[in-house]
Amino acid sequence: MARLISLVEDGHPALREVMSALATHTGHAHVVGVTGAPGVGKSTMTSAIVTAYRSRGRRVGVLAVDPSSPFSGGALLGDRIRMTEHSADPEVFIRSMASRGHLGGLSWAAPQALRVLDAAGCDVVVLETVGVGQSEVEVAGTADTTVVLLAPGMGDGIQAAKAGILEVADVLVVNKADRDGADRTVRDLRQAVSMLVASDPTTWRPPVVRAVAATGDGVEAVVAAVDEHLSFLGTDGVRARRAHRAATEIEGLALDALRARVGGLPGDVGLDGLAAEVVAGRLDPYAAADRLVESVT
Amino acid sequence: MARLISLVEDGHPALREVMSALATHTGHAHVVGVTGAPGVGKSTMTSAIVTAYRSRGRRVGVLAVDPSSPFSGGALLGDRIRMTEHSADPEVFIRSMASRGHLGGLSWAAPQALRVLDAAGCDVVVLETVGVGQSEVEVAGTADTTVVLLAPGMGDGIQAAKAGILEVADVLVVNKADRDGADRTVRDLRQAVSMLVASDPTTWRPPVVRAVAATGDGVEAVVAAVDEHLSFLGTDGVRARRAHRAATEIEGLALDALRARVGGLPGDVGLDGLAAEVVAGRLDPYAAADRLVESVT
Repeated sequence: MARLISLVEDGHPALREVMSALATHTGHAHVVGVTGAPGVGKSTMTSAIVTAYRSRGRRVGVLAVDPSSPFSGGALLGDRIRMTEHSADPEVFIRSMASRGHLGGLSWAAPQALRVLDAAGCDVVVLETVGVGQSEVEVAGTADTTVVLLAPGMGDGIQAAKAGILEVADVLVVNKADRDGADRTVRDLRQAVSMLVASDPTTWRPPVVRAVAATGDGVEAVVAAVDEHLSFLGTDGVRARRAHRAATEIEGLALDALRARVGGLPGDVGLDGLAAEVVAGRLDPYAAADRLVESVT
Repeated sequence: MARLISLVEDGHPALREVMSALATHTGHAHVVGVTGAPGVGKSTMTSAIVTAYRSRGRRVGVLAVDPSSPFSGGALLGDRIRMTEHSADPEVFIRSMASRGHLGGLSWAAPQALRVLDAAGCDVVVLETVGVGQSEVEVAGTADTTVVLLAPGMGDGIQAAKAGILEVADVLVVNKADRDGADRTVRDLRQAVSMLVASDPTTWRPPVVRAVAATGDGVEAVVAAVDEHLSFLGTDGVRARRAHRAATEIEGLALDALRARVGGLPGDVGLDGLAAEVVAGRLDPYAAADRLVESVT
């Protein structure tokens, strides 16, 4: 499995064949996203969630995604998962991956790696991402259930709302809840949820759970909230989320293929030739784009 | 001109015709990007740069781009330009625009708005963006010369290097240089530049300039550094930067057109139908993407 995920990371040509073979074996795993700002305790919580699911006899996969620097293309390491307690457990699969490219990262490689873990028979896959803005949106689009971690003093409910956290969270966790200010953070978040999320029975209202991942306190409540969200979604809800995720993935792959065709055009009818015409004022960008589309279709 | 830029913001169908008519009138303006973290004084510096260019008799355009929230699609206002001193000057064109969509924003709409300001005869267009990570990269890809603002105490040279600032900056400005710590910030930045940028005469080494935009101190030195960078680039260098920018713009428009074709496919051969097949395990994402590409080409 590690070798298969390496194929994904490398964008290996054999990936097509592998994914074709895996297709019929997928669709079983419950994908749980764990995200939040740096320092909020994501890796510790991920490890605690793994422990909780393992105590229920579930097979668990963990995929930890590090965002790449958009500048260098290299991975900014630092938050790699520390889960030595699970490393000897044959029913736990742990994989860290750097995201590819500057934005295609999570939307491209992570769904494929999830597909590998899913096909390997994982009941639950925990997808841990460093949550800062855009990647929180991406994880919410990739997971069946998104757990957003906050810590006391890292911002009140209004700030969470401003940062868009309430729009992506299925479960809100105030981690490090033994610290000063935890009560206030919990209260603020609950108030923000009650103001911003419709209170009708067809809408899921993200619960706010207190936890101390480092000691395990409250982790069972987090897992119970995750399971409750899965029940709320039901078969149809899960299928809808996954269809949305698959559509994004397919569209991304198709656009990549079209982009590759564009890149393969000879200079004078290709991008470079057209760009030179635009810079010289002989062509406008729309007309140039039309010619490009004609050339690849 | 304001109406033309509104067409750009609205993505109006008439835009194609307008851009076609403007094509032969573009290529004159020097595009100067001004970016930096919130609170560093971008709007004040932009205003001061406008004053400096006006005193030289240049016609100046200003385009201030606010990033949209990736969550709501709405603009997070707050840093709109405050340039009332220039509002009565007929040779200064000022326009704020919210970026469109969550990432297509600057790469899509701003180059077109720049094209309008360019065709209107601006000698210089200042493109002001809230610089946080990704948008700094985008502004660097859009401007001929990128000015990155920092303030004392906002991070030393190593942090700037880590944040990728040195890779996009053509001119580094330590603004609010009358504050404590300015000397250290300047020294750190110069050291980082000397370590990271090759010291051969064919490579531009970003100068580090001290300024206090609010009083005008050092602004002439900033403008001189910008002009020096333009001279360094020369006609060929500017053409190369603009060709790169045009290529990105053309590719973006072409992919948008292809994406629209994908979206226009009927359900069963379209994205939704294929996504359902993938979720059901009857198709893998690559095979689905292949079918999508076949359908639109």
